[in-house]
Amino acid sequence: MARVESPLRERAEAPKQGDEGAPEAWLVFDADVAAAMADLRAGDDALVLTWLDRADRSVLTVRPRSDPSRPETGVFSTRSPDRPNPIGLHRVRVLEVDGLRVRVGDLEAIDGTPVVDVKRVLERPGDR
Amino acid sequence: MARVESPLRERAEAPKQGDEGAPEAWLVFDADVAAAMADLRAGDDALVLTWLDRADRSVLTVRPRSDPSRPETGVFSTRSPDRPNPIGLHRVRVLEVDGLRVRVGDLEAIDGTPVVDVKRVLERPGDR
Repeated sequence: MARVESPLRERAEAPKQGDEGAPEAWLVFDADVAAAMADLRAGDDALVLTWLDRADRSVLTVRPRSDPSRPETGVFSTRSPDRPNPIGLHRVRVLEVDGLRVRVGDLEAIDGTPVVDVKRVLERPGDR
Repeated sequence: MARVESPLRERAEAPKQGDEGAPEAWLVFDADVAAAMADLRAGDDALVLTWLDRADRSVLTVRPRSDPSRPETGVFSTRSPDRPNPIGLHRVRVLEVDGLRVRVGDLEAIDGTPVVDVKRVLERPGDR
């Protein structure tokens, strides 16, 4: 459907959340979903859902923020990328649309990560 | 992983968003993810991700809110459940935890919908 193009190449380089210094990235859509992304515009806020294909799906508990002083916690109470179904959820601002390529700000997903869905942010009932 | 138990039986009964009159529902987890959900507590706010298995994955454009006066819009700029990868995103409050069963408020997903992930809501950096 789409993939992330990012200067982040390794998990170790990626911040834990997009607002913790993540870079701009491109979402590169396949032609078969061109109609679905045709109304994305610079300035839109959107939720990008990714499949974190380098995550460890066997992990059920983690220490949040990789902090050894914090107790082991079930991953559904955390934002660990390692979890049974590693779907990443990223709120981004659309910065530019160029054909099938969409530039977004502050995306912590690494290069090559599959994009599985994009949803416009609905801030107010009037946005619906 | 888990499924929704809800009084909503048909898509036509379901509100478009959880805060538009959706009922309480139970998330019923499989035993193999018990450790992942063990730290969910009444009062937590969480994002529930579902696989909207009754959605039409061939739909690329819709009229938002099913309103015929609105223009055909690419689904990535809408919250249509019909989309190439129909992942539902639902913000809920946890009301009760009973073993592998978790009662939540305001869930518009219909009975039997697969739950694919749960993520705690991080409101503030101090929550991370």
